[in-house]
Amino acid sequence: MVKSKYMIIESAKNPIFRDALRLQDKKFRDESGLFFVEGQKQIGEISKNWTIKQIFRSKKYKNDITDSKSIITLSDHLFNKLSTTKSPQGIIAIVEKKHYNIEKVIKTSGLFIILENIQDPGNLGTIIRSADAFGVKAVFVSKESADTYSNKTVRATMGSIFHLPIIGNIEIKYILNLMKKEKFTVFAASLKGKKYLNNIKFSNKSVLLIGNEANGLKSETENLADVFVKIHMPGHTESLNVAVAASIIMYEYLK
Amino acid sequence: MVKSKYMIIESAKNPIFRDALRLQDKKFRDESGLFFVEGQKQIGEISKNWTIKQIFRSKKYKNDITDSKSIITLSDHLFNKLSTTKSPQGIIAIVEKKHYNIEKVIKTSGLFIILENIQDPGNLGTIIRSADAFGVKAVFVSKESADTYSNKTVRATMGSIFHLPIIGNIEIKYILNLMKKEKFTVFAASLKGKKYLNNIKFSNKSVLLIGNEANGLKSETENLADVFVKIHMPGHTESLNVAVAASIIMYEYLK
Repeated sequence: MVKSKYMIIESAKNPIFRDALRLQDKKFRDESGLFFVEGQKQIGEISKNWTIKQIFRSKKYKNDITDSKSIITLSDHLFNKLSTTKSPQGIIAIVEKKHYNIEKVIKTSGLFIILENIQDPGNLGTIIRSADAFGVKAVFVSKESADTYSNKTVRATMGSIFHLPIIGNIEIKYILNLMKKEKFTVFAASLKGKKYLNNIKFSNKSVLLIGNEANGLKSETENLADVFVKIHMPGHTESLNVAVAASIIMYEYLK
Repeated sequence: MVKSKYMIIESAKNPIFRDALRLQDKKFRDESGLFFVEGQKQIGEISKNWTIKQIFRSKKYKNDITDSKSIITLSDHLFNKLSTTKSPQGIIAIVEKKHYNIEKVIKTSGLFIILENIQDPGNLGTIIRSADAFGVKAVFVSKESADTYSNKTVRATMGSIFHLPIIGNIEIKYILNLMKKEKFTVFAASLKGKKYLNNIKFSNKSVLLIGNEANGLKSETENLADVFVKIHMPGHTESLNVAVAASIIMYEYLK
């Protein structure tokens, strides 16, 4: 992308603008390895070891931008096209995705999370936010799940996407094979569990499998687990929001 | 509303249809005391002590409807107008809100929740769902919060709205005054807390105050609390999604 501190774009046909707009689609995020981060607060959360490729500001945007050499001003009309929020603040960063070395990531001890087919970007982002708060070592996200780098997911992480390794598009079997070699114990959140969460003894190297919002884990994935974990629910319903359930297990592990 | 098993509406000017459509606005839900429940699964969750005033089905809807005498068929076009989901299943119930006697509700022991200025209907619904799962006795929702009876909130509760008293449009000070007379201990979720959740001794009659997503509790509300509760977060961030935080505290109380 062009580096010019004072460039102004006012035409929707401008190729830089068009390239940026394409990043609203997962396909182009996958191809380019880039994604959006919108708003001053979220951009402020980007850690130093991440690369900001480009910053777009609206004409109206008043605050100083100190961090980047490459700032392009968009007409308010174009900016609103690029923005995916209802009331745009006037600043969007295009950020490079990070690639993590899986073998290296799983050499450490602690709690790891594997997500299977989480469809709601809000739930995905909320789980990543909780994982960050509770010191989870990494989150793996299966292929069929919502995109970690969609605007909605990034927003729901509240900056946590920059704080711990989030590894997407994974094949669960492949990751679990690697982890089993590293002596991980595999826990699965499941109503089939006979033991309640507060009676579970987690190990130093634990990985937790969390399944789809409506259907839970696929049976072929459940079959790979060593221990089923159930949350005690003494009320009228036996179900929790998936991000809530995942977060309660993380909380209990790290207590 | 008219009771006719075989009525078909195909005009958007039909007064029954127009009355129903108005229920998409909070103002009309408040005035009429009615709200929407959409989809077969959610309608199946409606407990017997709730009154279904009317059922709308789309022409395409194939399943049997056994529960109600008052079923109106809508043209698919009208049905889609009434629906607030992306892929409508073809069935919507209009249900009467329930009125609870607050003095009576707070005579029981257990955990109660008071929500202040929760703006996201998904968060509000998720908190109600968790409250149901963990056997919370009632949830009070402050005036400025999202509407408990909006379609998004009702959907996020996954039927839990029918399982425990949810009392909206409340004045927090007023409720807390009533509760203090009943010897409740008032807990507030707050980062200002010096004690971590796992060291808190809850009492038999406990009420938990949960504040706004971005700003937490108002200071005048915090001042009414007896104990501040903080969740231990050893990771990189000191914040959780509000529904996650509320749910973890409920989980810990009921353990």
